[in-house]
Amino acid sequence: MTRKKLSSVNLWIVGSIGIDDIKTRTADRKNLLGGSVPYSTAAASFFTRTGAVGVVGSDFPAAFDKRWQAFGIDLSGVQHKEGATFRWACEYDANMIERETLKTELGVFASFMPELPNAYRQVPFVLLGNIQPELQMHVLNQAKGAKFVALDTMNLWIEIAKPALRKVIRRVDLLTVNDGEARMLTGKWNLCDCAETILKMGPSYVVIKKGEHGALLFSKKGVFIVPAFPVRKLVDPTGAGDSYAGTFMGYLARAGRVTDTLLREALVQASAMASFGVEGFSLERFAKLTTKDIQKRVTELKRMMRV
Amino acid sequence: MTRKKLSSVNLWIVGSIGIDDIKTRTADRKNLLGGSVPYSTAAASFFTRTGAVGVVGSDFPAAFDKRWQAFGIDLSGVQHKEGATFRWACEYDANMIERETLKTELGVFASFMPELPNAYRQVPFVLLGNIQPELQMHVLNQAKGAKFVALDTMNLWIEIAKPALRKVIRRVDLLTVNDGEARMLTGKWNLCDCAETILKMGPSYVVIKKGEHGALLFSKKGVFIVPAFPVRKLVDPTGAGDSYAGTFMGYLARAGRVTDTLLREALVQASAMASFGVEGFSLERFAKLTTKDIQKRVTELKRMMRV
Repeated sequence: MTRKKLSSVNLWIVGSIGIDDIKTRTADRKNLLGGSVPYSTAAASFFTRTGAVGVVGSDFPAAFDKRWQAFGIDLSGVQHKEGATFRWACEYDANMIERETLKTELGVFASFMPELPNAYRQVPFVLLGNIQPELQMHVLNQAKGAKFVALDTMNLWIEIAKPALRKVIRRVDLLTVNDGEARMLTGKWNLCDCAETILKMGPSYVVIKKGEHGALLFSKKGVFIVPAFPVRKLVDPTGAGDSYAGTFMGYLARAGRVTDTLLREALVQASAMASFGVEGFSLERFAKLTTKDIQKRVTELKRMMRV
Repeated sequence: MTRKKLSSVNLWIVGSIGIDDIKTRTADRKNLLGGSVPYSTAAASFFTRTGAVGVVGSDFPAAFDKRWQAFGIDLSGVQHKEGATFRWACEYDANMIERETLKTELGVFASFMPELPNAYRQVPFVLLGNIQPELQMHVLNQAKGAKFVALDTMNLWIEIAKPALRKVIRRVDLLTVNDGEARMLTGKWNLCDCAETILKMGPSYVVIKKGEHGALLFSKKGVFIVPAFPVRKLVDPTGAGDSYAGTFMGYLARAGRVTDTLLREALVQASAMASFGVEGFSLERFAKLTTKDIQKRVTELKRMMRV
């Protein structure tokens, strides 16, 4: 894969960078490049020049850096620290719906303190990937030029750091959560009620992800129902939500502005990209992907949505 | 509600007619008009003149006949037998997702042998609602003039009467099942694989219903992803699948022909109608519904689907 490098970073993404072991019914893969940042930045890189913010340890293979850089991703925000890279292992059930976490070793990620490269401080588009809300706030405070900030989180922070999380939510333009997290965050069951509650917390947009069932975008202007692309050959669902968020932010960053119409298009592109991501382990499918492949799948998906 | 009666029946539907007791978190309702036929014919009646085929016992309230006839439904295919009407009771969990069947008393439904009124034998559109496959076949054999036949079924028949069910499936144009039933019927997990297998069994179309997550239409021409309308005030989900099937068959019967484009539109109308149905118990919401309400919701839903 050869990709032209664009001149300046339009979007940066903070989150985890890790080394994953993943077991499915048919495969058992070890030492994969994983974490939210590789998935999301690789997906975003098809749309705009993207920067990664995270931390790796002294055991992080040089080959990973190289593989990742092949996407044209700017890695100047990735800290290299003495110690072990974040390691995570999981096993999926036969239907790839539930997964059991077998190992979580934080390593250098435990003391991660994100510092924004100077060049990123004026970047307009920001995706705060799933890390401790306090760290999300810390890095957001450095992003003086941010124009549109999206936030991802997880059930853990809703449970143990809700007040800090609420503070970050108040500051962002878009919150992306899955249906379970939306319910946990709001204490409501109906997803329309969840979205209404979240919109009152601050963001102008909420994207509620439902995995294979697609996602819902809520704003003051209404609801957009975006289907998932029906995947025939599901290889590994890990990182699908990250690829999804990376794509819609990459698409918006390329557009340079956010409207309801652009966001709808961005989410369809995100569905297409997420469906490619799960057709391989780690970034393997993305590494072989062309812009033409993406356009073809987006066209197919739109045909499936058309009345 | 006043409805103009159309001259001749364009669609008939066979299935259960019952008296339901339904308990939800906030309500406990007894002696409701229920069963697949009342829900599906009431929904279909907004689109075309519809006939009901089923059986009721001597305890079936005259008020139910009256309420049902108010939709302009032709009841000449409903047999009145000595004995008790089919009775069913259930209780929903707090989130209206799972339900527990508390009572199933077949009564006269146990010895039901559907006989088609002569006037129905040349009717072009037929919905074989969920009853024993042998009875579906028995009544289908009488439908000499049927041009487009849809079939609904349930997990029970897949378990205990699969060979008979496969015989009916071979004879119909469209099969509608939920995702769990599609998996049980085919032994596959991926819904695309399930649909491919079902299309090989005979039907030209398969509609796989996923409840609040919408439905998927599969045909040789491709996939249509039809979302569910996001319901704010879910009162009682009972009968949603029946209203859904009744609507798309009613819509097609009104059109008088079936194309991929018509079927897509029919399914969007079905989503809208099913969303109204669950806003009340039994046929209560349908009884207050106008064509204008339906058009408004269809327009809203299409706006939610538009990229």
